[in-house]
Amino acid sequence: MTKATPASIPTIGVFDSGFGGLTVLRALIDRLPRARFAFLGDTARLPYGSKSRRTIARYAAQSARFLVGEQGAEFIVIACNTASALALDAIREAVTVPVLGVIEPGAAAARAASKTGDVLVIATEATVHSHAYTAACQTLGLRTLEKACPLLVPLVEEGWTDHPVTEEVIEIYLNELRAEADAQGMNPDTLVLGCTHYPLLRPMIERAVRPGRVVIDSAESAANAAGGLLNGHMRGSAPGASAGEPAEVRCFATDSVEKFERLGSRFLGRPVGHVELVDLGG
Amino acid sequence: MTKATPASIPTIGVFDSGFGGLTVLRALIDRLPRARFAFLGDTARLPYGSKSRRTIARYAAQSARFLVGEQGAEFIVIACNTASALALDAIREAVTVPVLGVIEPGAAAARAASKTGDVLVIATEATVHSHAYTAACQTLGLRTLEKACPLLVPLVEEGWTDHPVTEEVIEIYLNELRAEADAQGMNPDTLVLGCTHYPLLRPMIERAVRPGRVVIDSAESAANAAGGLLNGHMRGSAPGASAGEPAEVRCFATDSVEKFERLGSRFLGRPVGHVELVDLGG
Repeated sequence: MTKATPASIPTIGVFDSGFGGLTVLRALIDRLPRARFAFLGDTARLPYGSKSRRTIARYAAQSARFLVGEQGAEFIVIACNTASALALDAIREAVTVPVLGVIEPGAAAARAASKTGDVLVIATEATVHSHAYTAACQTLGLRTLEKACPLLVPLVEEGWTDHPVTEEVIEIYLNELRAEADAQGMNPDTLVLGCTHYPLLRPMIERAVRPGRVVIDSAESAANAAGGLLNGHMRGSAPGASAGEPAEVRCFATDSVEKFERLGSRFLGRPVGHVELVDLGG
Repeated sequence: MTKATPASIPTIGVFDSGFGGLTVLRALIDRLPRARFAFLGDTARLPYGSKSRRTIARYAAQSARFLVGEQGAEFIVIACNTASALALDAIREAVTVPVLGVIEPGAAAARAASKTGDVLVIATEATVHSHAYTAACQTLGLRTLEKACPLLVPLVEEGWTDHPVTEEVIEIYLNELRAEADAQGMNPDTLVLGCTHYPLLRPMIERAVRPGRVVIDSAESAANAAGGLLNGHMRGSAPGASAGEPAEVRCFATDSVEKFERLGSRFLGRPVGHVELVDLGG
């Protein structure tokens, strides 16, 4: 087998409103350890989770255009549930390369995990109001109940990922969700983490769900889907198989790169290195 | 006394990154009940509190230009501690009308209240890192200790203004601040609420501070300062004294006007009415 030259390895563009998407990038690097990644965090305009479809679509399309036009990305992973839920069509219109969001892979993983066919989803306000998970799950024959948990992102960003207050907030949100599921006569056995910040709370969330329930991480599900697609797509350069250089990762942010460098490592699980500031005109 | 015609009443432009500044607008309406107000919430790009000086200055200057250029504001009140702390100079360069921030009035009220000369300030991350309160208080002979409380804004926006979790978070933040003040040998008797969201937590914060300490609301302090300036400035039309029409308030937002209309009334203490969507190009 011919060893791939670096030039033959396509760039995978990964984008999020902030740092959360670095959990998706982390899972992608595990699956495609020899690939080349360009990650953009639109930190000047985060969070998307509390904003409108129109605004999110405009921001997300600008971000995708930067990754394809300026960074030569040949594949886009939207590492953000909110942008996947509200801007997938806008992004697909804005660029000509394949675009993968996190919603469909999350729904597919829930379908594979659930025996009862009843699934709970926790996410940001905008993701929940879009009902993108409900739509994706419905086409797979699943019944869903979604709940916005707006305090979880700020708690993660405060670094309270192992704090009693966070445990209490998770209990409150999940109790409200369970009460609503009971009221609707549902029998859910699967919980989808519909926000890329939530994997950092996974140990706490797993303690809070009833025994026997499966917790689905949409970041991992999306990385699995992208890994499958890209290992095929990049067969010539075999990024997951060659013994060449480790993954090349370039990070870009639209606001303070210092903060990105400081907080990003918490999500990526390793130092993010030098982050370049970009201006999308916002 | 001649009754003022509406045309002789200047428009006061009030601006914030979101809804919090409506607490300042509310206090301004109390003091200038016959004035004309144009309020802009830059909700598409909120929150400013976690962003960099460069980004905040650009956003704030665009917002001020809209209020002066498009709405004819003849006086600008920056109803946002973060923008006051990081963008006052940028705003004064961007427009030619008088501009009042909330930091100096807050510091002046602390000066008037404090007997020991030691003052505590709670605010957003960006306001604290700017040390704008410390600088403003120092010129008045006060010693300050500032603390960022990033969870308080999300807790207010979640509507948990009377919730045990919020009480616990306030206790944690204030205990950390008190321990730091003790370690520095300070004897603080005054606490400044350096964020326009915090007045909604005032009853809880007052319960959490030691008896005898004064809580200063920067929104009220700024409204007092603006009221004093403007009642003089608008003597011809006497907006605070005439028995004419009640205050005319027009609200603008850069994102979802529905959300603004829904949440805004909580801050304004009355319905915000129709909100117009504006595009600042971000």
